[in-house]
Amino acid sequence: MAREARYARLRRIIELTRRIATAPGRLYSLAELSAATGAARSTLSEDITLIDDVLQEKGLGVVETVTGAAGGVRFRAGFSAPHAEDLAQALAVELSDPDRIIPGGFLYMTDVIFSPHWSERIGTLFAGRFQSEAADMVLTMETKGIPLALMTARSLGVPLAVARRESRVTEGPAIGLNYVSSSGRIGTMSLPRRALPAGSRVLVVDDFLKGGSTVRGLVELCQELGAACVGIASLCETPSEDKYLPAPQFSVLRLDAVDEHLRRVQLGPSESFQHYLEEARNHA
Amino acid sequence: MAREARYARLRRIIELTRRIATAPGRLYSLAELSAATGAARSTLSEDITLIDDVLQEKGLGVVETVTGAAGGVRFRAGFSAPHAEDLAQALAVELSDPDRIIPGGFLYMTDVIFSPHWSERIGTLFAGRFQSEAADMVLTMETKGIPLALMTARSLGVPLAVARRESRVTEGPAIGLNYVSSSGRIGTMSLPRRALPAGSRVLVVDDFLKGGSTVRGLVELCQELGAACVGIASLCETPSEDKYLPAPQFSVLRLDAVDEHLRRVQLGPSESFQHYLEEARNHA
Repeated sequence: MAREARYARLRRIIELTRRIATAPGRLYSLAELSAATGAARSTLSEDITLIDDVLQEKGLGVVETVTGAAGGVRFRAGFSAPHAEDLAQALAVELSDPDRIIPGGFLYMTDVIFSPHWSERIGTLFAGRFQSEAADMVLTMETKGIPLALMTARSLGVPLAVARRESRVTEGPAIGLNYVSSSGRIGTMSLPRRALPAGSRVLVVDDFLKGGSTVRGLVELCQELGAACVGIASLCETPSEDKYLPAPQFSVLRLDAVDEHLRRVQLGPSESFQHYLEEARNHA
Repeated sequence: MAREARYARLRRIIELTRRIATAPGRLYSLAELSAATGAARSTLSEDITLIDDVLQEKGLGVVETVTGAAGGVRFRAGFSAPHAEDLAQALAVELSDPDRIIPGGFLYMTDVIFSPHWSERIGTLFAGRFQSEAADMVLTMETKGIPLALMTARSLGVPLAVARRESRVTEGPAIGLNYVSSSGRIGTMSLPRRALPAGSRVLVVDDFLKGGSTVRGLVELCQELGAACVGIASLCETPSEDKYLPAPQFSVLRLDAVDEHLRRVQLGPSESFQHYLEEARNHA
């Protein structure tokens, strides 16, 4: 009997961990978890405290309790300072590989950006960095921004909107704008009106931040639709010239130089990343 | 002491569940799990059996044991028949909403396709359907295919490659081809050579399957790079005219009609989905 009860608790812990850890940002009511596991709410609370404890100890986030009638528990995903640092280091090593140098002084990053393995961890890092901004939407520009933005939205538990170069007849009324890209060309971006509700708090995500014109365009799209940009996250930036950005900005890496002849890539943690790391260490 | 030991086991079960359930397709060696939890391998096996048992009971997949020197355990994600049916039903209800009708007889599906909530579950369904084909890459065409393809790749634990309309200077040597789209226009698609290794077993994923020309183009890209297409998965298809497809094909839904004037959407589970459901029921 005692053995049976122990197995029941182990099984319940497995099911609770599975639900909570695989659905960050999702609010589970205790009634829902109680129905799913057949356990009383008081028992559940003890289990959830233990799960929170392990997730915090592993540096993966916090299971927060929301009180009140619409209350419950919610996993706020994000990396501790050591995890964040490990990820930035691993990314820097991976992306500094001289085999990534493309004729013309470019760096091949597409496989990393499109990889579920990397994009999921980068998304968790972004979510943790902007957790306090209470974003309820993520917005990006097609194409290479999509995987990081999707994984960030997943980690925050919020929807994703994607601006496109042209408006599509299949997506209904759209808001469009022109912008001057960092290479001096005029680009257009378009977003279906229904993709971004007025009043949204929007986290803008992109893979690469150069002059910032794409990101400024996305922020302008937000404003046109009555939404507010609460942050800008990118995987990699170039050294700042005169990069005016209308919201708090965070990059993991800064790409300083790609030397085709010496076959050398100069790339490391960005200033905003180092600043974030310091803050995270002070809070720990 | 007994209480301490029990907490130790509960904490270990939480950590193991977290690792296994959040990284489908990833092979964990027992040595790695042993180092991460401080438990002996024999103890771990018992815990893993219990986790497998709960995941199977919940209809979410199987924790498979790989024997041999490079062995370990791996979570093979996929939905049981009841879960798959629930998902198809929920998608059909969501997408049949007359408010989704766009002037011209189109259906607005973008929010569902870009949603982490939906795309993750659709990706798990695709992964389960094609688990036996042992795909080691997922391939899609920009833009709307990306979220479903990324989540499918995540559920299989394999990388993602994305074909683009134009080749980019930042991505190095690319293979390109022209194809005639279902609307009769000539399209181009391009894939960096290094994105898809020769010998890959490729699962092609797209959001919408109409005439099949995009998907046939993607399969041709595979062949040009010495890779093999082992399956084709899409969220939604139109009724088949003469859709020749060079690999096993699977769609969740079939869109039969969008009536702008009656404000009615005719849409339901596809034939390939119903066939899959039957097979899954017979195996259960």
